[in-house]
Amino acid sequence: MQLTPTDRTRVRRLPDRGSFDRATVHAILDEALNCHVGFAIDGRPWVTPTIHARRGDDLYLHGAVANHMLRSIDDGIEACVTATIVDGLVLARSAFHHSTNYRSVMVFGHATKVDDGEEKRAALHALVEHVVRGRSDDARPPTESEMRKTLVLRLPIIEASAKIRTGGPVDDDEDLALPIWAGVLPSAVTFGTPVPEPGVDAPVPAYVQHYSRA
Amino acid sequence: MQLTPTDRTRVRRLPDRGSFDRATVHAILDEALNCHVGFAIDGRPWVTPTIHARRGDDLYLHGAVANHMLRSIDDGIEACVTATIVDGLVLARSAFHHSTNYRSVMVFGHATKVDDGEEKRAALHALVEHVVRGRSDDARPPTESEMRKTLVLRLPIIEASAKIRTGGPVDDDEDLALPIWAGVLPSAVTFGTPVPEPGVDAPVPAYVQHYSRA
Repeated sequence: MQLTPTDRTRVRRLPDRGSFDRATVHAILDEALNCHVGFAIDGRPWVTPTIHARRGDDLYLHGAVANHMLRSIDDGIEACVTATIVDGLVLARSAFHHSTNYRSVMVFGHATKVDDGEEKRAALHALVEHVVRGRSDDARPPTESEMRKTLVLRLPIIEASAKIRTGGPVDDDEDLALPIWAGVLPSAVTFGTPVPEPGVDAPVPAYVQHYSRA
Repeated sequence: MQLTPTDRTRVRRLPDRGSFDRATVHAILDEALNCHVGFAIDGRPWVTPTIHARRGDDLYLHGAVANHMLRSIDDGIEACVTATIVDGLVLARSAFHHSTNYRSVMVFGHATKVDDGEEKRAALHALVEHVVRGRSDDARPPTESEMRKTLVLRLPIIEASAKIRTGGPVDDDEDLALPIWAGVLPSAVTFGTPVPEPGVDAPVPAYVQHYSRA
């Protein structure tokens, strides 16, 4: 299924890198651990890193970001959420054609506060699961008091697009014979050896031991 | 040396996580491969991922981001540039106290186009070096025509701050005895085996073979 391009999401430059495929947009949002949330206060931009979670066609944000965005605006706020996964460094023979391989998603829309208790609980569950799948079965769930202390925002994933670059460098023909190494250095986010808190007796859970975002 | 806090950069929530130390801000900007640039067009936010580079107290952006930001505004634009390095997932016994370890920097300011040829060339050099230190000695430098095709923006690193979280989960006392694993799963960006372009005879350079951002 395709999302409908708008003036904001149409990829103007290098349009072959753009995608409106709903499954592609969702997959990038799900794999990216974090995102950067942009909003304007008195016309001035703010960009805050945070954790997100997707449930169906909705993106959820929570906590301090929500608090900050909603400080002056009760009724929701225009937001742009961008999630980026870097897959590699692209080294061309020319400085000019250096690039990166990446997958990114931009979601534009009106973020509004989630008041419904059931939806809010489901969103917080999704946020924990987004970070560590399986963790919700173990972690002590939020109390009513913790629920009240947490702000959750919903942003519909309607005006959204993905941008993807893959493959090697694209050098100009006249540079191809230069005696310069060219290629891709793949990059990925990797996870190390779990560090238990002092006093923790429980064994390292499988979802931590074999953690993966893919 | 300390940067001067402003209304925008003062860390309101959890102020002990904030830092105005210039060297700390610079080090995070230098280690982070990419950043997210926020700006507002007609009061509506945009957040674009891009590569940045620092030279002294200036941050430089280039290419498509610059183009997009400057499309309607010749005179520069208010920007917020945020760079984030995720260092780990913090698993608390309670869902509520889950967190991440991270280092992030926000830079607010007026980004302006770099017209001076010497500064522009130095900025593009710094951008290549930011991605792969040592690469500029090998890569074919920009031609005059490529220079003209590339937009470069300068953002002074004056109104800026860092935010850093380190360490394990901070659970409530009454949760400490719960039989739930708690701790940190360290995360890092790692780089794999270089993939040469077909037809490249040059050996893999040391700066690629032993690539590191730290």
